[in-house]
Amino acid sequence: MPDLTPPHIPPGSPGPLGPRGSPGPDTTQGPIRLHAHAPTVLRPAATARIVGGFWAARRHTNASVSIPQGPERLEQAGNLANLRAAAEGSVTFTGDFPFQDSDVHKWLEAASWQLADAPGPSGLAAEVARLTALVAEAQDTDGYLQTYYQVAHPERRWRELDWGHELYCAGHLIQAGIAHHRATGRRELLDVAVRFATHVDSVLGRDSGADKKLDGVCGHPEIETALVELYRETGERRFLDLAGHFVDRRGHGLLAQGIDRARDPGPAYWQDHLPLREAPTVTGHAVRQLYLLAGATDLAMETGDATLRDALERLWHAMAATKTYLTGGVGARHEGEAFGEPFELPPDRAYAETCAAIASVQWSWRMALLTGETRYSDLVERTLYNGFLSGVALDGDRWLYVNPLQVRDDHESHPGDSSARRTSWFRCACCPPNVMRLLASLPHYVASGDTEGLQLHQYATGSYATDAGSAVTVETDYPWKGRVTVTVDAAPVDRAWTLSLRIPSWCAEFTVSAPDGQDRTETDGGWLRIRRRWLPGERVVLDLALDVRLTEPDPRVDAVRGCLAIERGPLVYCLESVDQRPGLRLDEVTLEPAARTVAEHRPDLLDGVTVVTTTGHHRSDGTPTPLTAVPYHAWANRDDGAMRVWIPRS
Amino acid sequence: MPDLTPPHIPPGSPGPLGPRGSPGPDTTQGPIRLHAHAPTVLRPAATARIVGGFWAARRHTNASVSIPQGPERLEQAGNLANLRAAAEGSVTFTGDFPFQDSDVHKWLEAASWQLADAPGPSGLAAEVARLTALVAEAQDTDGYLQTYYQVAHPERRWRELDWGHELYCAGHLIQAGIAHHRATGRRELLDVAVRFATHVDSVLGRDSGADKKLDGVCGHPEIETALVELYRETGERRFLDLAGHFVDRRGHGLLAQGIDRARDPGPAYWQDHLPLREAPTVTGHAVRQLYLLAGATDLAMETGDATLRDALERLWHAMAATKTYLTGGVGARHEGEAFGEPFELPPDRAYAETCAAIASVQWSWRMALLTGETRYSDLVERTLYNGFLSGVALDGDRWLYVNPLQVRDDHESHPGDSSARRTSWFRCACCPPNVMRLLASLPHYVASGDTEGLQLHQYATGSYATDAGSAVTVETDYPWKGRVTVTVDAAPVDRAWTLSLRIPSWCAEFTVSAPDGQDRTETDGGWLRIRRRWLPGERVVLDLALDVRLTEPDPRVDAVRGCLAIERGPLVYCLESVDQRPGLRLDEVTLEPAARTVAEHRPDLLDGVTVVTTTGHHRSDGTPTPLTAVPYHAWANRDDGAMRVWIPRS
Repeated sequence: MPDLTPPHIPPGSPGPLGPRGSPGPDTTQGPIRLHAHAPTVLRPAATARIVGGFWAARRHTNASVSIPQGPERLEQAGNLANLRAAAEGSVTFTGDFPFQDSDVHKWLEAASWQLADAPGPSGLAAEVARLTALVAEAQDTDGYLQTYYQVAHPERRWRELDWGHELYCAGHLIQAGIAHHRATGRRELLDVAVRFATHVDSVLGRDSGADKKLDGVCGHPEIETALVELYRETGERRFLDLAGHFVDRRGHGLLAQGIDRARDPGPAYWQDHLPLREAPTVTGHAVRQLYLLAGATDLAMETGDATLRDALERLWHAMAATKTYLTGGVGARHEGEAFGEPFELPPDRAYAETCAAIASVQWSWRMALLTGETRYSDLVERTLYNGFLSGVALDGDRWLYVNPLQVRDDHESHPGDSSARRTSWFRCACCPPNVMRLLASLPHYVASGDTEGLQLHQYATGSYATDAGSAVTVETDYPWKGRVTVTVDAAPVDRAWTLSLRIPSWCAEFTVSAPDGQDRTETDGGWLRIRRRWLPGERVVLDLALDVRLTEPDPRVDAVRGCLAIERGPLVYCLESVDQRPGLRLDEVTLEPAARTVAEHRPDLLDGVTVVTTTGHHRSDGTPTPLTAVPYHAWANRDDGAMRVWIPRS
Repeated sequence: MPDLTPPHIPPGSPGPLGPRGSPGPDTTQGPIRLHAHAPTVLRPAATARIVGGFWAARRHTNASVSIPQGPERLEQAGNLANLRAAAEGSVTFTGDFPFQDSDVHKWLEAASWQLADAPGPSGLAAEVARLTALVAEAQDTDGYLQTYYQVAHPERRWRELDWGHELYCAGHLIQAGIAHHRATGRRELLDVAVRFATHVDSVLGRDSGADKKLDGVCGHPEIETALVELYRETGERRFLDLAGHFVDRRGHGLLAQGIDRARDPGPAYWQDHLPLREAPTVTGHAVRQLYLLAGATDLAMETGDATLRDALERLWHAMAATKTYLTGGVGARHEGEAFGEPFELPPDRAYAETCAAIASVQWSWRMALLTGETRYSDLVERTLYNGFLSGVALDGDRWLYVNPLQVRDDHESHPGDSSARRTSWFRCACCPPNVMRLLASLPHYVASGDTEGLQLHQYATGSYATDAGSAVTVETDYPWKGRVTVTVDAAPVDRAWTLSLRIPSWCAEFTVSAPDGQDRTETDGGWLRIRRRWLPGERVVLDLALDVRLTEPDPRVDAVRGCLAIERGPLVYCLESVDQRPGLRLDEVTLEPAARTVAEHRPDLLDGVTVVTTTGHHRSDGTPTPLTAVPYHAWANRDDGAMRVWIPRS
């Protein structure tokens, strides 16, 4: 058992920082720190640390390999040169895209969360300071900051909202500034962000009548969630108003009015076809859609806007029920990196961009806080363990942009084709620093609190505490084993509170032992609730049955009709050629619904995974053949062979 | 029986026209008129006319509705204004694409074939003359002709071979000029084409050493097949050499060298990743790939190049066996309008562009002539009756660009999305005039001749004759009925010749009665051969059994596993919501492999089609439900409901 120091539980709830004030009590070092009066059902845990188990290992690689390599990658790709060029007044822009600054901002956010989590690898703080200075020096005196327009096309500033990504980059800058401030207490990057946000407000904010402003929204949502967080961080209401303005102005055909029609992907691509409150389903570019929805959920959390909440619940249900892969991946279409139609979920041509999985986690977590319902964290879990984590290699330095559920034996890979192969960086490098920032801030997504107690949404060895003084330590070998031990470290004196444990929707059977000795089998909307006057040291042991499941697809998913998938706990499994007997073609394997399966932990394989073995059959002649399945998230770490999640039924 | 006047059989074989000479014997009025010494196995029929039956009706609509509407559509879309702008030296270009002239060229080709076929609707000849004059007036003095660069971007001429489509437009101009000349005997348009081709040769031709030329190929193949035909039409070898040069220079990474990387789709997109002779399979943009292959096949037909033929056979097999839909549609991917991987054939997201089906027909017909094998015309038949013909509505004035095999009950249609709904024209209007030119030249694809006799590749009521003096009349209600009556109209005196009838690969059973009274059940590679000294008036009656087939997909096509398709003769059938009982959701229907089916001709429905009725079941509770299937090519002529070709098995 790791040595878990009970966390410090600071008194009181977090207050807003106040404009340009000194940092308030920094009880939440994660991406969301709600305003004290935000009318949500749940609030993120006041402190959260992951110190062991599955996620600690992946986060260690993130901290020791992925994040430290970031500045070098950004230097090689020209992102840092662009910042220097802006500072120096050069006219040489490097790279193909206007949004390249956002890679730097996301790295700074990731590195900041890492600094908050632990002292961090040697030199990380210095690198953060160096890149922060580069960003600050690149900023124009009026607050503007996007090197593509500063360096290459100053005359087009604010004239290409469709494809310019200026507000998108501003959003990532704001998030980086907030993370840096929360993690280090330093204001340099936050000040840069506030200056840019203020400039944005002066150019694009709600018209006061006196000064005529641009009526426009960004082709790529992202600033909305960032502005709400900036309101939370600074207490300045104008940022919340600006976020609301952008959400409300979207969907009125403001985009693509003046552009070359050949560059117009149609209004649904950037969610400009309908106001969000009226949209019947998620559509268009998946990352754009999901960042927008995350921002709108932030708004609903702060404003209590009921019509917005209704729309968000409707849209989330449409996504989860009809447009989400078994892996949690979303955005089925390569064309437009977009959501497909309901049940259009091809395994081979799954786009399922890593960034879309991240955006889905961000949105669903906000929905969990807004509503208190477990289904949102069910999807967070499915996404984290499968379609998100597949995005980064075990070694932490190769990435997937696209996360298919099938690669054929005769896979054709052509230069220029969106690849399902790992690579060390991308021309459009949005995904790697996005993975880094989610892993670095992952403890934030584990637990929450409310006036009634503490809720565990995910099971990760570590310590979690609420504003109200409830604190627990979790120990578990999840997802390999189903036992979760929760020890109360601190508790409010003389009053009862409720420890709520999410029973995953995949779990058919569980047992729990609590200090009162009562049997509990009932859940409350997915929550197992244990209410008592807790004493420090009291313990709850939850055992989730991890039987292997051979899952049938929804019959409406045409593309995987007649197939089965192997699952165990929160993990989706896949067959990879490399694990089968030599020469076996995965395209010729079938599986019976009643096939016997064996789960076995293999410490030697893929940094230690539980494999599932079973017996399948050759399609042609029915010959039995042994099959070995590995967790989907660990695929493509050994060779470039075939892979499939969905296996035809015998 | 229609009144079929036996065709005139001109003596001798067609000779080349000779440079600027007067028209030679015009025995072939179709798109391919081989050089007299071309070492192919088969040659197109010397004359071919369709006068009745299935295709005559569709061609009547083409001649009376589609083609006459062309000039108005081209005026509305700005194509004709661009030609006037080029002639007048204006700088206002209308439209979004550099290749818009090609729509005019294709319409001129279509209208010319129509004039060749019959006197044509009143005023058509005048319209052809008017548009021909517009094209001629737009041509620059040096022979250059592409209004996009003449009007909008003269400084970029020949500098954007990747996306500029200059040679693509030249190719369509050449084909139009040839069609116009063959159909009318007039040279105006052909002269324009020869001038442009000569200019192209001077700019991009093979370097002679003395004059340094551009080393480049067009981002969109098309000129290759046109140049070979221009060689055939004029006898000028330099055009054949230029075609060979473009085929050989492709695949060496000449494209996308200087362009913005964000506009680079990767070399496979435009078949620049490997020389054609080395490519293992068809890949990239389907229309680009297939026009290139058609041109390469033209080359092989004229040169007898064996290595080229080997490559063409390999590539055709790869396409037909692994990348072709049941409908003959090709180019599965929306992204890049491209071929997918082997067996990546999703029914819902089938792109299957109408132009790709046309290009497939053009290529396969050339392969049939090159090799004499029936499999090529098998695919031509499948494509013509299904994935091609679906591209035009029964009324002749609405079109499909994309030809999916499934539209769900809850189909989501968003502005900007590639639509599976019919529309009267397209922003990128390549398909409609392409359909027009194929329908107008369709008789050309029916029959061929060789020194041994006459071959019938398709069954269409009409008259067909070879250079060698064999002539037949065909009468049939194909594809509704399986009886084909072939009457010999003329025959070489005093020598035997072979009438060869293609037995379609879908046909399990046939009978044939011939003048010699012999039973024939054996075929020779798909050809039923009847050799005798034919006398005029002798008759062969072929009966092809048209049993309804419930077709199982290749088990490697993951996307339609566990489904059945309904076929009858060359026709693929589909279910459309509008034909089922009200409220039935197609997504909930299943079908048993042993389901009884009934074929019934319905003269009242869809201009007269044979429907297939059967009984399916509700997926949920197994309740039987009557089902009515209509030919796929006739779908989307009544409403915008659901449709599916592949039906899940009960």
